[in-house]
Amino acid sequence: MVVADAGGKGRKQGSVAKAVSGQGENTLGITVKKSDDFVEWYNQVVLKAGLADYAPIRGFMVMRPNGYAIWERIQRHFDKVIEGHGVENAYFPLLIPKSFFEKEAEHAQGFEPELAWVESRQGEGAGEAEERLAIRPTSETIMYDSYAKWVRSWRDLPLRINQWCNVLRWEVKQTKLFLRTREFLWQEGHCVYATKEECDREVRMILDDYRDLVQDLLAIPVVAGQKTKSETFAGALYTTTIEALMPDGRALQMGTSHNLGQGFASAFGIRFTDEQKKEQLPWQSSWGFSTRLIGAIVMVHGDDKGLVLPPRVAKRKIVVVPIVFEDSREKVLKKAREIGKALSEHGAFVDDRDNYNPGWKYNEWELKGVPLRIEVGPKDVEKGHVVVVRRDTGAKEFVKDKDIAGRIPQLLEEMHKAMFAKAKKFLDDSTAEAKSEEEFSKLVAQRKMVLAQFCCLPECEQKLKEKTGITSRCIPFNVKGAGSKCIFCGEKAESKALFAKAY
Amino acid sequence: MVVADAGGKGRKQGSVAKAVSGQGENTLGITVKKSDDFVEWYNQVVLKAGLADYAPIRGFMVMRPNGYAIWERIQRHFDKVIEGHGVENAYFPLLIPKSFFEKEAEHAQGFEPELAWVESRQGEGAGEAEERLAIRPTSETIMYDSYAKWVRSWRDLPLRINQWCNVLRWEVKQTKLFLRTREFLWQEGHCVYATKEECDREVRMILDDYRDLVQDLLAIPVVAGQKTKSETFAGALYTTTIEALMPDGRALQMGTSHNLGQGFASAFGIRFTDEQKKEQLPWQSSWGFSTRLIGAIVMVHGDDKGLVLPPRVAKRKIVVVPIVFEDSREKVLKKAREIGKALSEHGAFVDDRDNYNPGWKYNEWELKGVPLRIEVGPKDVEKGHVVVVRRDTGAKEFVKDKDIAGRIPQLLEEMHKAMFAKAKKFLDDSTAEAKSEEEFSKLVAQRKMVLAQFCCLPECEQKLKEKTGITSRCIPFNVKGAGSKCIFCGEKAESKALFAKAY
Repeated sequence: MVVADAGGKGRKQGSVAKAVSGQGENTLGITVKKSDDFVEWYNQVVLKAGLADYAPIRGFMVMRPNGYAIWERIQRHFDKVIEGHGVENAYFPLLIPKSFFEKEAEHAQGFEPELAWVESRQGEGAGEAEERLAIRPTSETIMYDSYAKWVRSWRDLPLRINQWCNVLRWEVKQTKLFLRTREFLWQEGHCVYATKEECDREVRMILDDYRDLVQDLLAIPVVAGQKTKSETFAGALYTTTIEALMPDGRALQMGTSHNLGQGFASAFGIRFTDEQKKEQLPWQSSWGFSTRLIGAIVMVHGDDKGLVLPPRVAKRKIVVVPIVFEDSREKVLKKAREIGKALSEHGAFVDDRDNYNPGWKYNEWELKGVPLRIEVGPKDVEKGHVVVVRRDTGAKEFVKDKDIAGRIPQLLEEMHKAMFAKAKKFLDDSTAEAKSEEEFSKLVAQRKMVLAQFCCLPECEQKLKEKTGITSRCIPFNVKGAGSKCIFCGEKAESKALFAKAY
Repeated sequence: MVVADAGGKGRKQGSVAKAVSGQGENTLGITVKKSDDFVEWYNQVVLKAGLADYAPIRGFMVMRPNGYAIWERIQRHFDKVIEGHGVENAYFPLLIPKSFFEKEAEHAQGFEPELAWVESRQGEGAGEAEERLAIRPTSETIMYDSYAKWVRSWRDLPLRINQWCNVLRWEVKQTKLFLRTREFLWQEGHCVYATKEECDREVRMILDDYRDLVQDLLAIPVVAGQKTKSETFAGALYTTTIEALMPDGRALQMGTSHNLGQGFASAFGIRFTDEQKKEQLPWQSSWGFSTRLIGAIVMVHGDDKGLVLPPRVAKRKIVVVPIVFEDSREKVLKKAREIGKALSEHGAFVDDRDNYNPGWKYNEWELKGVPLRIEVGPKDVEKGHVVVVRRDTGAKEFVKDKDIAGRIPQLLEEMHKAMFAKAKKFLDDSTAEAKSEEEFSKLVAQRKMVLAQFCCLPECEQKLKEKTGITSRCIPFNVKGAGSKCIFCGEKAESKALFAKAY
């Protein structure tokens, strides 16, 4: 039985407020509405839900346990996926010699401005050849130097390596927790193939993995496509991407998978002998996503009460809150603990702290986004049921004791689907097509993602960016009907492209 | 049935050599004996087993997939253990402001010489307060700055946080892969407690976890104890340690757990209000182990054929090698794959590569340390059995098809126990007690770990170090009979201590 609940406590307030308590009011809540001040709301949720904190160094952040636990779930999920593709994890050095960046010209140009260099220690360590070293902003160059040693024959291919690590890019723009910090955590996969076909295929395979990760684990719908020339990764042949739309109408790039062509192989001397004993240049891919995914979860799913965690990525999925009165204390605690234990494999835990009252606990776990709350009071013990409250909708349901083990996993799945469907509807409703530049401007003003015929030429895109601050997010794989004229410059359109302001 | 096998192939050489093959000789093997040239042997095993490679920057290394997989198994094991203790993982910034190091004087002195500083970017980012930043050598200071914000009340304690990360210490000594590199990976746990008793108790709890991890997962016996004053962590009240003995008679510190006292709390302003509403200074602990554990596995268990992985830490525990002849190809491959599938949950995989012969495969997987090899030839298919070969002893055993599922896990456990027992016997046989400095010198010359009455005074230990290069490894927890005179200076002995050259 589902009881509709318009944002309140549902259960009579009195009974909860009178329960044993050492603490009265919740002073931790979010003080602004998501719809009123999105930026402030976002920061409050990230900070108050214990996902992250500002670091004492400008542009850096501390990832707190609640945030890091999300990253660990993402890691565990993705590690299994790529292991199935034969990708192995490894770890390469944090520091990269200056000369390495210079080997691939476009790549160097792309990253040079954001590099943090290590101070020289000339003279220390007798005979030490001194070269300027930078903290890695990405690891193509340091990895491919090793690849040149490891790859000899067609037998060594494909080579598929991934690393989970920290990278540093000295951004000068304002920091946004998870979305733009000078240091962030990510995974970067770097593969080497004998043929372009194989490389193309696996570039898409990984992008499909990214889409599945984001949609199936994080309940965030994405648009998959290819980047235009000016948005392509520095040094790549082409870049594929998945893009999500945030509630403020700005797009967030959720992961990219690049075909690097043969440029890096040529620059770093990666060669292999094929089955006919001829020397060949291999093809390479690289692909990555970062901790900014956590920022996307907050923005897409969060509400005025705080974080709403998609159930599959939540480590702690179910909080069991006993409603304790002195005369029924033992039986209520006993039942709460039994339920917690029975559901422990589904990520249940019991909040049996004595010094907080149930209302305070409800608010705390709502703030922190725990998907389901199970309330156990003395009346519930008598009646042989519990009250289950969904975090996303606030909907309540009485579940009989004997049905708990069956119903709870169902509810978690229903919640995932509902969260995805809601976000998908927003994405669909917020996407529109413009037939002219005028229409484009109108739709942009309405915070839409806009699809439009586009020449895809860097000069045209640069002009648009200067005029409006907007760039193309991608050329979606699934759009049809290209071939007319670019709505901006009137030249021949290469395809329809998707436009939005980006994080 | 166990067939003794004195280091050879056991199975008639002819049959294996004649099997279908695209490649003749194994040129990958270790070319020196462990007993002849331990240093060269170690490097060859690390490099040729694909555990690590030298990086293009002096003092750094690349951790290759075979090495990183060991680290991942260690991480997974230890994460479960500390999660059970209520420890949560988090991530703090890579860079630490200079002023932070200066807050705790001893700590600063200990780490200052090894810091790598980031070049100033003065002037960039308008109004940016400029402070010199170092790459973390350890994270006490940056973490405790946040702790001072997070800890307010006794309700916030204990605070137990761990991070897995890279750290950098600019060593000037010669690099040794896994054992001494400028960058390494580790975990560092940092906890805050209301009382010294609780802190003491958990410092030991973690040390016990370390001992169990190293003994039960890596099959390496250790001695647990407390460090003398001069070997105590910079800034700590006391340091506890687990020490293992390497085959060359040198000790390797495998993990340390420190009671930091109240010094850091005082320096970083961590305070809490107790239940009586009085402000108090908390007690702190920190504890860590690093990727050098992988070096210990190589040294302790490896042999002249290469790496020998303790079964519990091996990801790939069982290699199934089909012995393929053209006329029996299909049935042999079929059986090999069936066995691989049936044992996949135990870490089995099938090496069905066509372009290598079985002898080459045996050598390769022996070099890489896979615990068990299952050979499947046409005769084995006929007879309804397989040949199973243990990596540590080379012992062969015919196992009937119906017994495979039961026998293989047993064999893995037997192997773990035998490897531990062998290493334990070496440790016991290599430890001796000296009643005088003369006896001490004699035992040291025989590469023994030496137990001796010791004053534990820094000056005495410093003199010993200058004279012999030897320091105390620890004051073992389980020794008795302290109280007579220090064998070096004749002053009152505080305890017996254990001495050895250290890595």
